[in-house]
Amino acid sequence: MARQLLLDCDPGLDDALAILLAHGDPNLDLVGVTTVGGNVDLATVTKNALELREYLGFPAVPVVAGAAQPLTRAARDAAHVHGAGGLGSVILPPATLPAHDGHAVDFIIETVRARPGTIHLVATGPLTNIALAVEREPALARWVASFTIMGGSYSRGNATPAAEFNIWADPEAARIVFDADWDVTMVGLDLTLQAQANKGVIERFTALGALADELIVPLSTFYFNPNVPDWDGQAVHDVCAVAYVARPDLFESRPARVDIETQGEFTTGMTVVDFDPALPNATVPTRLDVPGFWAYVESVYARVAAAHST
Amino acid sequence: MARQLLLDCDPGLDDALAILLAHGDPNLDLVGVTTVGGNVDLATVTKNALELREYLGFPAVPVVAGAAQPLTRAARDAAHVHGAGGLGSVILPPATLPAHDGHAVDFIIETVRARPGTIHLVATGPLTNIALAVEREPALARWVASFTIMGGSYSRGNATPAAEFNIWADPEAARIVFDADWDVTMVGLDLTLQAQANKGVIERFTALGALADELIVPLSTFYFNPNVPDWDGQAVHDVCAVAYVARPDLFESRPARVDIETQGEFTTGMTVVDFDPALPNATVPTRLDVPGFWAYVESVYARVAAAHST
Amino acid sequence: MARQLLLDCDPGLDDALAILLAHGDPNLDLVGVTTVGGNVDLATVTKNALELREYLGFPAVPVVAGAAQPLTRAARDAAHVHGAGGLGSVILPPATLPAHDGHAVDFIIETVRARPGTIHLVATGPLTNIALAVEREPALARWVASFTIMGGSYSRGNATPAAEFNIWADPEAARIVFDADWDVTMVGLDLTLQAQANKGVIERFTALGALADELIVPLSTFYFNPNVPDWDGQAVHDVCAVAYVARPDLFESRPARVDIETQGEFTTGMTVVDFDPALPNATVPTRLDVPGFWAYVESVYARVAAAHST
Amino acid sequence: MARQLLLDCDPGLDDALAILLAHGDPNLDLVGVTTVGGNVDLATVTKNALELREYLGFPAVPVVAGAAQPLTRAARDAAHVHGAGGLGSVILPPATLPAHDGHAVDFIIETVRARPGTIHLVATGPLTNIALAVEREPALARWVASFTIMGGSYSRGNATPAAEFNIWADPEAARIVFDADWDVTMVGLDLTLQAQANKGVIERFTALGALADELIVPLSTFYFNPNVPDWDGQAVHDVCAVAYVARPDLFESRPARVDIETQGEFTTGMTVVDFDPALPNATVPTRLDVPGFWAYVESVYARVAAAHST
Repeated sequence: MARQLLLDCDPGLDDALAILLAHGDPNLDLVGVTTVGGNVDLATVTKNALELREYLGFPAVPVVAGAAQPLTRAARDAAHVHGAGGLGSVILPPATLPAHDGHAVDFIIETVRARPGTIHLVATGPLTNIALAVEREPALARWVASFTIMGGSYSRGNATPAAEFNIWADPEAARIVFDADWDVTMVGLDLTLQAQANKGVIERFTALGALADELIVPLSTFYFNPNVPDWDGQAVHDVCAVAYVARPDLFESRPARVDIETQGEFTTGMTVVDFDPALPNATVPTRLDVPGFWAYVESVYARVAAAHST
Repeated sequence: MARQLLLDCDPGLDDALAILLAHGDPNLDLVGVTTVGGNVDLATVTKNALELREYLGFPAVPVVAGAAQPLTRAARDAAHVHGAGGLGSVILPPATLPAHDGHAVDFIIETVRARPGTIHLVATGPLTNIALAVEREPALARWVASFTIMGGSYSRGNATPAAEFNIWADPEAARIVFDADWDVTMVGLDLTLQAQANKGVIERFTALGALADELIVPLSTFYFNPNVPDWDGQAVHDVCAVAYVARPDLFESRPARVDIETQGEFTTGMTVVDFDPALPNATVPTRLDVPGFWAYVESVYARVAAAHST
Repeated sequence: MARQLLLDCDPGLDDALAILLAHGDPNLDLVGVTTVGGNVDLATVTKNALELREYLGFPAVPVVAGAAQPLTRAARDAAHVHGAGGLGSVILPPATLPAHDGHAVDFIIETVRARPGTIHLVATGPLTNIALAVEREPALARWVASFTIMGGSYSRGNATPAAEFNIWADPEAARIVFDADWDVTMVGLDLTLQAQANKGVIERFTALGALADELIVPLSTFYFNPNVPDWDGQAVHDVCAVAYVARPDLFESRPARVDIETQGEFTTGMTVVDFDPALPNATVPTRLDVPGFWAYVESVYARVAAAHST
Repeated sequence: MARQLLLDCDPGLDDALAILLAHGDPNLDLVGVTTVGGNVDLATVTKNALELREYLGFPAVPVVAGAAQPLTRAARDAAHVHGAGGLGSVILPPATLPAHDGHAVDFIIETVRARPGTIHLVATGPLTNIALAVEREPALARWVASFTIMGGSYSRGNATPAAEFNIWADPEAARIVFDADWDVTMVGLDLTLQAQANKGVIERFTALGALADELIVPLSTFYFNPNVPDWDGQAVHDVCAVAYVARPDLFESRPARVDIETQGEFTTGMTVVDFDPALPNATVPTRLDVPGFWAYVESVYARVAAAHST
């Protein structure tokens, strides 16, 4: 039976690629997309989610807007990475259907409460919505089937030398989320930087036709980061978090205690990862089966591309 | 026309006295009581609110439970002040009616949204519920008629040398609340320590009969604090916040910028009050018309006591 | 026998008035003046100390320059209070004698080590020199006869709402100093704001003749601070610290634990004062015998003025 | 001409191996050894330095004791790594010569001032002495020929997940040192963990005879750390810092901005390293020529061993 996946995201180049995976994998059942201000502002990420929904063809899946701002700090985006519109050079047709009424926080709580033990919650943006949901309803932490984020790092950051963007964008939310009564699977930079869409990947993507031309390749090649050691192509960070739900066999992980620094002068937003903890609160994937990962992603994308071209 | 008052509280000796005032003043219309973990745990403060509702006789006013825990920190109570049961030596009959379904955060948002510009929101406990509400619905800050808290100080604290209990108990929530788009009236310790129920006050209370014997006097005389300079009797902190809504004429106030310290080693939970601010975000009462205050409070209590004895 | 006083200072209006007191009181024996960057930069405060030494006539007392910068932070001065030259409108003749060779830190250590149990150390500027000295030679804390500072507050600050200038200017130094193995007498703002040179004081000063015209009155009337509650005249902060050594009978004090906040976002440099401590590390004067204080100060100044005019 | 090296250290297993290198390399001229409380307490590290001096035979080189405590924090040692005596299982004959009179801070200042542009200063313990010296005499930063530390990391720590021991032991000192007016060569964990004394190294050491049996091998094999990824043998951290002065050609380095976190809840003592800085303040070796390094170290040790056995 397909795993029910609820995706909280801020599309965003790699969020869009993650949505594509969640939508296209027949072993996943995307039950909702909630949005949060992050890579770009809330209005834009919600617009992107709505357009992707119609372009990819899953209009029955609710898209629900959530928090526009971090809990206690000023909003800071990553438009320098994702482009002002959030999807790089991609321009999709305007959506004809509106967002779901109500607020992402309520939608998350209600969806998970309605089917305890069933929903795999995945967050690929700042954790503001998730924090508000788990504060409002602490039992959420017990009701989810699993909870996976793209965020953090156990070595170096990308927003700052110490902090990864999603955690840095709302550290207090991350702290709430990691302190809640669940085990967080933290798919961080050390893992996702193994998933670089290199020349070979891009070539195989290109062979997929119109969907690749219009969406997949532009999303996968929009930016170049000279500061990533051993840069081989753009990393598809958020795709890894969705892949973890569908294919945990592709990941090697370690239990860890993750604390979120909120008090540092130079380190706020850092995920401090202790791999020798008394009490773990997280599972941290450390190694990716890179060929297996791309084989999986490419097969799903090929499936969507085939349907798309007909 | 009576001012509609929505009270978020954690009864609590002085919260109970504040509820009594809000209920008894014909110029106030108590439209709801929401509870938050604080002076004692959430279950106990909610139980207290329910018992007070029936004992005082306003069963139609919803009592709604809210957050049990601070946003990001471990819960810390003030049972050493308010007694393990929260109401000192007072034991009330068990309530027969349950709390309202749903969560305080939703109740606050819905109540204020339903009547924009009408509701005077008062918070006399930690600000967890208010923070979650204003994060979930930022327009709340514009929809209230006014927002008043008991909390903070511009000189010294009581939970620590620097911090007052309500702010110290959830500093991140306080920060969210003070940073929201409203002017917070901060009724802090410098003001409330002027409202000490001294011998004369207690004597006049005593004359009110059964309600005084059973409730008012025990709540007003439960503890003695040798560290308060010029101690003259127990201060009725929370009563001042409700009184401010009904009788702002009794207070002299100054505009101020209030920042909440969340990063300090010895000062976390402090309200840092700048009385010469570029951009005020708060109104800080500094002087109380003490005789006028007690005349007002006593007249309302006398009214309730008279009704109670019949 | 006169008490030997070693004064570490940053003249500064009230530092100059404190030097005048230390020099003029026959019960005090000023054995050295060390300087530290503070109210204005090190070069200027040292120049001022040298000029005061010759103008007042104690050329045999060493003046030794110390630290130009706070331990770990950027320098911040109070030229807006003391004037660009540090002595307000006062201009003294250039000094003909140079500063003592060597560094204040070494001079402090050597002077105190040479006469253990004898030297009363007084600091009226940022605590950089004292911190370096007590780090370099921890036994200094046992060798002094007493250690008194002007700095801190147990209610509100002056550099910020939370912090007094001398502590705020070098909080890490203050932390080292308060954590050392001595009892610090902290003459803070709550005390020194009782010592306001009001009209009556100024009138009596004026009667003292040339020294008053040239020095005392200009130093005592240079600035006006509308933010000090109950402003009655300029407070002579540093004079109180020297007076405490000569005339402790004029002060009422309480034992306290003083912690220095170095981590706060809004409170760094605050002296957090616990008057109910398990282990006191400080003595905090809280009440000044105001008439007695001025009688003492005026009598000393009159003595110097008389000598000066001859 | 030999480079003059002044070594501030806390022996310590690898400090002892570093002293051995500094003493044995004819291209280095060890002009002084100053000690600081760190791996174990000051008395013990000083005793170790004195015993090493006589055992290795350089009695004319001054050994001078310095700071026993970090600037503002409680002392924390690493006896669990280095053994209670600091040198693991090694027991040396008692020293017959005492430490130099005076304090390390003064010795450092005087030595460097006496020969500006000549002294290569190396610190392999907490930076307390160096901080006090550069605060006391800021020109020190310009007078040294170079300044190299063993400390810090640009990925993960060893004392905590975020912080390396030497920096963590006195973060305020590290901050002062990195903010001073020099370029700090930071030989951190990422570099030194490349210098693991593996089986092959130990076998070659063993062949060196008595000195190896008594000193080199026991110092190099005392502990085993299962948490170091790819553990191949004990890393000789401090040796790398001395080697950098003698043989910079063995290191590949990058300019960086290094900030010291002193405010973090989980990250205090972290060296936050920005490799893309506007204004570098440090040089960070990132790659070691491992075979070249061991060839160099072994040749020096062989030389000392040969002299020792005669």
